[in-house]
Amino acid sequence: MHYQITPIGVISTPYHEKFAIPRQPNLVPEAIGRITLDKSFTDLDCVRGLDGFSHIWLEFIFHETLAQGWKPTVRPPRLGGNERVGVFASRSTFRPNGLGLSVVTYHGAEMVNGRVQLTVAGMDLLDKTPIVDIKPYIAYVDSQPQARSGYAQERPETDFSIEFSEQAQNKLKALQLAESPYGISDYTRFISEVLKQDPRPSYQKNRSPEREYGVNLAGLNVCWQVDDATKAITVTKIESSKIEDSKIEDRSAPS
Amino acid sequence: MHYQITPIGVISTPYHEKFAIPRQPNLVPEAIGRITLDKSFTDLDCVRGLDGFSHIWLEFIFHETLAQGWKPTVRPPRLGGNERVGVFASRSTFRPNGLGLSVVTYHGAEMVNGRVQLTVAGMDLLDKTPIVDIKPYIAYVDSQPQARSGYAQERPETDFSIEFSEQAQNKLKALQLAESPYGISDYTRFISEVLKQDPRPSYQKNRSPEREYGVNLAGLNVCWQVDDATKAITVTKIESSKIEDSKIEDRSAPS
Repeated sequence: MHYQITPIGVISTPYHEKFAIPRQPNLVPEAIGRITLDKSFTDLDCVRGLDGFSHIWLEFIFHETLAQGWKPTVRPPRLGGNERVGVFASRSTFRPNGLGLSVVTYHGAEMVNGRVQLTVAGMDLLDKTPIVDIKPYIAYVDSQPQARSGYAQERPETDFSIEFSEQAQNKLKALQLAESPYGISDYTRFISEVLKQDPRPSYQKNRSPEREYGVNLAGLNVCWQVDDATKAITVTKIESSKIEDSKIEDRSAPS
Repeated sequence: MHYQITPIGVISTPYHEKFAIPRQPNLVPEAIGRITLDKSFTDLDCVRGLDGFSHIWLEFIFHETLAQGWKPTVRPPRLGGNERVGVFASRSTFRPNGLGLSVVTYHGAEMVNGRVQLTVAGMDLLDKTPIVDIKPYIAYVDSQPQARSGYAQERPETDFSIEFSEQAQNKLKALQLAESPYGISDYTRFISEVLKQDPRPSYQKNRSPEREYGVNLAGLNVCWQVDDATKAITVTKIESSKIEDSKIEDRSAPS
């Protein structure tokens, strides 16, 4: 027996590549996402009453890793990337049916170019992720604060300090003056929140502090270095990238 | 773009019909469910480490209502069955893609007849519901106790008193001596928890206290009456049903 799933919409996010996406939702509250519902959902009726909820569930497809299939066991980053746990004891992207689940904060819905568009924040989703369901977060049901959570009992510590080079500071100052196509109100805070998660793969930690990492975030090429001894992250360089332009086009004419 | 979803397993529960299934998980903690994983998941490796978690997410298919499709708005029972909200502002079973989501308590996994079998409690799922994913509940991510939850802010009040007729009491005494094929340790508590949810449809409330309702629960035909004036539920009759026998066969030879 099989079931066919059709996305109800697609989300645009500032995360254009897998590297540096926060590993759980709500770790980067400054990140804004916009869900454009499919044309099957013609008006705001389908989200009537959702404005009474501060949080919503997104069920989505890990579309970029789906083709790679799944394995019975995975190595979660929380265990240093060495220890294996069962795929059903993990939130790994490599899983049967490729279904993802994230709670995000909800900022309302509006009609944009004839489509229902929902604004959310704190999501950990790649840009253009297909959304397959949206449900309201019901605290008395979904919130189990006393739950034992195995190897993920505590929120990861993010005690890195962040410094920005002079070039990076100047670039950020220029950005604050222009309206962000990503809805980000403060790029400095956004980049800091992302990098404080220390997105380096476990096997690359404790390498030379000269080593430079780079990622595209919200249409910016961001480069940084990490000094593990002093717990200091330095953003060395920020430059605009081409993705920013195409992104702006995408939003004005959703397909 | 479509995606094909293949169930990873199936759950057996004491709920053999939709009527009287609790409307959210964990309202009836006495209900025990057993998930038998598909033969693609050959050994306990796929749930390795899950025993560190007290709760798990079940993603499932609303298989019994799938054929009926969905509508942009629904009438949740919490609003008396009169007021409409958007399908994405509800946890209605009638929704695009027919995907369900429930957090349940996790009681461990074992090999049974060559299959991985997980025991859970408090689920709100119909017997034989196809499960499409299992994920650990991670409290620091999934628990948002301060979330505003619209029309479902408070747990429903269940202030009905429950009485059992002499016939019902005698039947329950007999049951307590035999081992339950449903893993229920206390049928009296189980039936009380289910009926205290007041499963009557909204439009049937405040009818004559003589009116009798009946449902099959855990292989028992349970009949009851409700006196809305005194908030009293009386279980009038409990009888074994044929479902119980076929159920026992199912469990000894999972297909």
